[in-house]
Amino acid sequence: MIIDCHGHYTTAPEPHNRFRVEQLAHYKDATLPRPGVPRIGDDEIRETIESNQLKLQRERGADLTLFSPRASAMGHHEGDEAVSLAWTRACNDLVHRVVGLYPDNFAAVCQLPQSPGASLSQVVHELERCVVELGFVGCNLNPDPSGGHWKAPPLTDRFWYPVYEKMVELDVPAMVHVSASCNPNFHATGAHYINADTTAFMQFVQGDLFRDFPTLRFIIPHGGGAVPYHWGRYRGLADMLKRPPLAGHVMRNVFFDTCVYHQPGIDLLVKVIDVDNILFGSEMVGAVRGIDPTTGQYFDDTKRYIDALAISADDKHRIFEANARRVYPRLDAQLKARGR
Amino acid sequence: MIIDCHGHYTTAPEPHNRFRVEQLAHYKDATLPRPGVPRIGDDEIRETIESNQLKLQRERGADLTLFSPRASAMGHHEGDEAVSLAWTRACNDLVHRVVGLYPDNFAAVCQLPQSPGASLSQVVHELERCVVELGFVGCNLNPDPSGGHWKAPPLTDRFWYPVYEKMVELDVPAMVHVSASCNPNFHATGAHYINADTTAFMQFVQGDLFRDFPTLRFIIPHGGGAVPYHWGRYRGLADMLKRPPLAGHVMRNVFFDTCVYHQPGIDLLVKVIDVDNILFGSEMVGAVRGIDPTTGQYFDDTKRYIDALAISADDKHRIFEANARRVYPRLDAQLKARGR
Repeated sequence: MIIDCHGHYTTAPEPHNRFRVEQLAHYKDATLPRPGVPRIGDDEIRETIESNQLKLQRERGADLTLFSPRASAMGHHEGDEAVSLAWTRACNDLVHRVVGLYPDNFAAVCQLPQSPGASLSQVVHELERCVVELGFVGCNLNPDPSGGHWKAPPLTDRFWYPVYEKMVELDVPAMVHVSASCNPNFHATGAHYINADTTAFMQFVQGDLFRDFPTLRFIIPHGGGAVPYHWGRYRGLADMLKRPPLAGHVMRNVFFDTCVYHQPGIDLLVKVIDVDNILFGSEMVGAVRGIDPTTGQYFDDTKRYIDALAISADDKHRIFEANARRVYPRLDAQLKARGR
Repeated sequence: MIIDCHGHYTTAPEPHNRFRVEQLAHYKDATLPRPGVPRIGDDEIRETIESNQLKLQRERGADLTLFSPRASAMGHHEGDEAVSLAWTRACNDLVHRVVGLYPDNFAAVCQLPQSPGASLSQVVHELERCVVELGFVGCNLNPDPSGGHWKAPPLTDRFWYPVYEKMVELDVPAMVHVSASCNPNFHATGAHYINADTTAFMQFVQGDLFRDFPTLRFIIPHGGGAVPYHWGRYRGLADMLKRPPLAGHVMRNVFFDTCVYHQPGIDLLVKVIDVDNILFGSEMVGAVRGIDPTTGQYFDDTKRYIDALAISADDKHRIFEANARRVYPRLDAQLKARGR
């Protein structure tokens, strides 16, 4: 089967988006009404999914998407800790309903109620709620909840250890994924996302996080940011900084998705990165929605690029399915329970 | 001939480095002595150059390096505007002396006395001094003088126009090059440099800078950051954002160097980016100094990767020489005046 490890609910029903607008308005001006979580009918959810993610999933030939709330809307830098928690729960609950309606097509990945300067206690609690109570199989962890000002400690800092301890206990991985940028220097999907991927990888090179957490696992999305293109630089820097070789030091715990929107990029990814570290992903419907005039196909139809690779069927099976089942063991268990 | 567009004086004589330490110490504690610019003998300079850059230039078969002060030591975030100016002048004057001693092997590129929050008036003045009085052929412009906090406006903001006006008047390009990072999230050469390259490119996509300055030219180093690897994403984002196609909108004015430290990266660069937009560069002696165990060669011996490309001799000539002469017309004029 074909598992897309990177999809967001970018097409959520309008009442959900309106709730967020009203929530932030109330935060800024307490005389405005505090909105309740909106009632959204199953049909409303079905419509947004069937005309978008499910339609494209079928057209492109994927079977199941690891589905999380819209990353750019996580907005951890907006409001405060309570605002982040209320919004995050609404987002995760909505994704849970999508999975309930389409259990064959989606598995759930949660956003976390991070907030700049806040401790991680509510993050740990929400992760546990999603995984234990709602059956989520992974989470998205934002290394920069300040939204482009990069004020949190590096991901290797002990600040983050409470969430890592819970991830290890629950055996769920995190995708390292920032949200919108409120720094005018960084376009969200054109700079902030890619920079965060590159930054996280280099933090892992510098640190010794996986000595403390040998089973902790991260997916770095967008093809690993700049890392595979500069793989020689990272191998050389590890050497210069007297770090162990990347294979044992980082790459037992870090995986890249295939959200790279042209064939030469995917060719490079598969050439330099071990196939066991690559998970099929499309970020669909997401960052880039148009058709590439040079191919006549959607930029983000990344399955085509994998299909076109001159690698063995077994290698493709790893990229499309086996690696995801290994990195997300709770997904694997759910699939097996359903006979897949 | 072979022109390396990206070399820094990373091996400057010790008195120069000591001056900087004492200068910053005095800034923090005015009771400490204010150091004068140190006297450095020609032989001291010769020794640092002949045993490093010149030795490697000869061993690797390059002819001339566009040589600028050490980028990571520009340190625009340290001290204040006056400190930045004094340090910048000392750095540029030292590079000028290297070129005076080895005019066949080096041409000079200046650092600029930027300082967070300061206007660009002393930057413009120092650029003019270097180009008009000292014969420099280009400059390094730091898009983030705050050193990893990204507090300056984007490069497309009118804030930067005074330096662009001077660059156009003098007909010199700028390499977009950050300095050290004082943000613990960003390793300088492993994250901050690459992120800045990616960020600058996306700013150019978003803006209309080259409509206002049709002859303004930038070199984005380190192979253009993440951009070539994600070339489909950038083409797609330009389309989604209703920007013109990149060829006319950005790529008449923006060039990438070849500081990508493995063959697959260079292969990708040349595959997706027009050969007229690629300038040979090595960043030698710089970010990555070791030997790649998979090849037995230095990571930063990027000439080998170009030599190995299956492209025409004419295309190699463009990458190695012709593009640099076109992008740096003052270099071309100097070379022609010397019969090269």
